[in-house]
Amino acid sequence: MNDSAATGPEKTVTACLVIIGNEILSGRTRDANLPFLAIELNKIGVRLMECRVIPDVEDVIVDTINAVRRRFDYVFTTGGIGPTHDDITADAIAKAFGVGISENAEAVDRLTRYYADPALFTAPRRRMARIPHGASLVDNPVSVAPGFRMENVFTFAGVPMIVEGMFHAMKHVLVGGRPLISRTIRCSQPEGFIAEKLGAVQDHHPDTEIGSYPAFRQGKPSVSLIVRGTDPAKVQAAIDDLLAALTTLDAEPEEIPVT
Amino acid sequence: MNDSAATGPEKTVTACLVIIGNEILSGRTRDANLPFLAIELNKIGVRLMECRVIPDVEDVIVDTINAVRRRFDYVFTTGGIGPTHDDITADAIAKAFGVGISENAEAVDRLTRYYADPALFTAPRRRMARIPHGASLVDNPVSVAPGFRMENVFTFAGVPMIVEGMFHAMKHVLVGGRPLISRTIRCSQPEGFIAEKLGAVQDHHPDTEIGSYPAFRQGKPSVSLIVRGTDPAKVQAAIDDLLAALTTLDAEPEEIPVT
Repeated sequence: MNDSAATGPEKTVTACLVIIGNEILSGRTRDANLPFLAIELNKIGVRLMECRVIPDVEDVIVDTINAVRRRFDYVFTTGGIGPTHDDITADAIAKAFGVGISENAEAVDRLTRYYADPALFTAPRRRMARIPHGASLVDNPVSVAPGFRMENVFTFAGVPMIVEGMFHAMKHVLVGGRPLISRTIRCSQPEGFIAEKLGAVQDHHPDTEIGSYPAFRQGKPSVSLIVRGTDPAKVQAAIDDLLAALTTLDAEPEEIPVT
Repeated sequence: MNDSAATGPEKTVTACLVIIGNEILSGRTRDANLPFLAIELNKIGVRLMECRVIPDVEDVIVDTINAVRRRFDYVFTTGGIGPTHDDITADAIAKAFGVGISENAEAVDRLTRYYADPALFTAPRRRMARIPHGASLVDNPVSVAPGFRMENVFTFAGVPMIVEGMFHAMKHVLVGGRPLISRTIRCSQPEGFIAEKLGAVQDHHPDTEIGSYPAFRQGKPSVSLIVRGTDPAKVQAAIDDLLAALTTLDAEPEEIPVT
């Protein structure tokens, strides 16, 4: 990082996650991909700005992809690229981009080698080699059946272990900005007591964003204050003012180390 | 339930959840409100059809609310109605509906009684009595500061304990259809082996929806098959066919009891 990078205008590189899955919307399965991708994307300077959870319905997938791919720098989808009848994501992405879909020779080759015995390479498994025309493959180091990239849209599987593998296999192609630094102060006074001074600290530090998150800890109200910004010095200055303000309020502020 | 209800055309009553919170998008906090609301809504026949996670940015909240409130029967928002500077949801909802916002007398009264000592009823806490004009209050049995209802949009706090309290306090006003029944079969063969027969069972049972969810259990692939439908007899018929098909595939199917 040099001085001009530290002080010049910054473009925020944005991402949207589209979680495709009735099992998430029914409450049966709790999504784990959003926190993983949010944290990993931020490490390379890409900010997750929105997430949509949608059902396995083709029209909804098509409309959602077309709405978000123009608004965000990167779009990631999870879910719906397996071998069963409810795996409709690849077809929906092809439809969203107005392109055809058919077996991709490289994908067939990878799956043929992986399943080795032709009896194991069933027709449904072969279906996982169908890739929208013009897409490039995203490697799957866990179970081989690839994801794919179509312009700025990356289509991953839904199983978290596979999402993690696919992300680490493709992340080098993402061009990010500066990562958001995030530091946390916890205090023992409730929001209603600290809100005015907190607002004043926020007003004095417009280049950082201070979030206030109440919770109950051992039955007592507690507040976590998160200071976010891309410039370490500005974040530090906001942290210093925040600690001073909270100390005058007997709020026992302490910084929580990043885990 | 009578015969005409069981056989007549069914309107699906739909809901959308809008999670307002940078802390979810950053990956810091894992949302717990989606699974809770999905399951509770379904009990009263309301289907969660979409969820959007958006940042604490007024324009984004306004645009999102106006996009979804016309498309779904009910909209629920979580987050951003506390006493701090980053709590902007109430103002954003008022803006989305094109109405003013000011202190609600009933809300002030509840908070005045709750905080009793005027020194505790700070200006930021009083801010939580600001309610969009025309909205009705949603009771908060946990910490009193109310949520509110504006037409088909219900605005809740973000803390899960408060969301649960608010939901149970207001759910009697929701008019649902028939709950979706959901039954789960787990089997020991991977998707690629069962996909064809599974697709055939789905084709024979168009009034049920069969989802296939792969996972790793003790390092081995395993599949959960979820059969969903509103008619118990049709769900049972699909379950019976599914068990028979999986048994012929040596997939050791077993029904997983609802927990």
